[in-house]
Amino acid sequence: MKNNTQAYLNHLNKTLADWESAKHPIELYEPIRYIMQLEGKRMRPLLTLMAYAMFKEDIRTVIRPALAVEVFHNFTLVHDDIMDQAPLRRGEKTIHERWNPNTAILSGDVMFIKAYQLLMSIEDPTLLRKALQRFNECAIKVCEGQQLDMNFETRESVSEQEYLEMIALKTATLLGFSLELGVLLAGGDDKSTQLAKDFGVNIGIGFQLKDDLLDVYSDTAIFGKQVGGDIIANKKTFLLIKAMENAKGECEKQLSSWLTKESCDNQAKVVAITDIYNELNVKNLAEQKMNEYFASGFAALEKISVHEEKKSELKRFTDNLINRVK
Amino acid sequence: MKNNTQAYLNHLNKTLADWESAKHPIELYEPIRYIMQLEGKRMRPLLTLMAYAMFKEDIRTVIRPALAVEVFHNFTLVHDDIMDQAPLRRGEKTIHERWNPNTAILSGDVMFIKAYQLLMSIEDPTLLRKALQRFNECAIKVCEGQQLDMNFETRESVSEQEYLEMIALKTATLLGFSLELGVLLAGGDDKSTQLAKDFGVNIGIGFQLKDDLLDVYSDTAIFGKQVGGDIIANKKTFLLIKAMENAKGECEKQLSSWLTKESCDNQAKVVAITDIYNELNVKNLAEQKMNEYFASGFAALEKISVHEEKKSELKRFTDNLINRVK
Repeated sequence: MKNNTQAYLNHLNKTLADWESAKHPIELYEPIRYIMQLEGKRMRPLLTLMAYAMFKEDIRTVIRPALAVEVFHNFTLVHDDIMDQAPLRRGEKTIHERWNPNTAILSGDVMFIKAYQLLMSIEDPTLLRKALQRFNECAIKVCEGQQLDMNFETRESVSEQEYLEMIALKTATLLGFSLELGVLLAGGDDKSTQLAKDFGVNIGIGFQLKDDLLDVYSDTAIFGKQVGGDIIANKKTFLLIKAMENAKGECEKQLSSWLTKESCDNQAKVVAITDIYNELNVKNLAEQKMNEYFASGFAALEKISVHEEKKSELKRFTDNLINRVK
Repeated sequence: MKNNTQAYLNHLNKTLADWESAKHPIELYEPIRYIMQLEGKRMRPLLTLMAYAMFKEDIRTVIRPALAVEVFHNFTLVHDDIMDQAPLRRGEKTIHERWNPNTAILSGDVMFIKAYQLLMSIEDPTLLRKALQRFNECAIKVCEGQQLDMNFETRESVSEQEYLEMIALKTATLLGFSLELGVLLAGGDDKSTQLAKDFGVNIGIGFQLKDDLLDVYSDTAIFGKQVGGDIIANKKTFLLIKAMENAKGECEKQLSSWLTKESCDNQAKVVAITDIYNELNVKNLAEQKMNEYFASGFAALEKISVHEEKKSELKRFTDNLINRVK
């Protein structure tokens, strides 16, 4: 059982290093190179390559379409970071912080066009049309998810179902497309393509629930960033949504009091709300929901009609992401 | 000689009215409908249809690709208006003013995807690929032009050549693509497609020079907005660039003094700088340059091998734009 992940990653990073050489105007292209070269996991294009490799061995023609997904993902990060006024991305300054919001808007727009250009490397016209149609649908869903996420910030409460819809759109759709694209380009039939997409969407929702859990229940030393960031920001994660749904009496009063404080000791807030989460057992609820999605995802993967061994890379890679501690 | 312009416009507006019916989330789609329904001239899609109609009569299959150009154009306006902090667009509030900058960023992004979706209505795979490739190149140039335009705001001086490069990218490229697309979709050969593009790029540069002139030399009552807006904002138009290039001695001192005043009587500034423009004859220089571009444009149109009568609509429409007084 060969492990190709590192070889795939090298392929991707090599192509990416040579990819964007435009120089003029420098104000537009420097931020693009900057964001694309921040150390990312390249999870999405790797999924595309692994999905492709279930059916065909030579991944060389798929590198550029796979990178389209990565460039699109980074475009959404650039624009989302403006909207969320995020100062840091992967430990480095965001584009709108290092340069300014106008540069981030416009560099982002160019990245979006570049994603389409990378997809245009698909030579087969039928596959190109299909890939573009699905990419467009996916891109629109990602924007809808971001809008819902912003809407939720100012809403009093959000239901579990609304939250799951939002993360499906904002996060999981693109993972679904990454996998779908790989199978599509390998000439997989409609059923296999749909199953690969289902695998991606389900593990994508699971990953977001994992993120929600890690924010609260991880070891600061390993996590590498402040534990409880979501709690401090009153972010309506799955945990908070379930806590708001289930808290009664004194517990509800306590929770509501922490959520409405104008200012407070952040450390005390993290401890107090984590205690409430523990009291209400929301960690288990989140883990249960997360595992349901992972199970649905793997069930879809099982149904794809290729030899088990062909799925091993994808499974191992996904398992590593599921078991990550930061 | 039939005049089809009104019929084309009706086609475009009818398709546009039924086009975007998505409702959820309303915060994303309401601004898109708002901006697309502001009274626009629909110049670009009309040019696409007229270019197509030089070769083929039935324009129905070209309506949606033509609207792609209009939707893309409006996307650039939405994002540019954020960057330029513009309060009004076509006499109505801009999206970032009526809603907020985040909504303008995200609605704009969705419009961009919608432009690609409209292009996907091109059925012939070879034409689809060509159209997308050229659209991508055009879109990147438009972004580069916007970046240069922003760069120029903080520059001490800009050369005539730099200015012409900027307006070619920011404004004229899309007019070139509008015309190129029409001929391409009608099955025109490479030479005709290139000539239509040349026509569009050249008249596009001419139109921008016309805008620069109208800002200073038009009748307020007819112009419908404040005459001298560019002068008040120290905008480096062709007129100001030539004035800065040619002013010597006392005239140079006067010009420099008006440009560096922290605050002043705007009306007096408009009068004084217009006097300087007149003294330096820059109106004539701009008109001469503008007419050169119009002449180059029409020379390209002449060379397209279709019967003269087939070009009459396009010529009349362009002449009306050239002779506009506001």
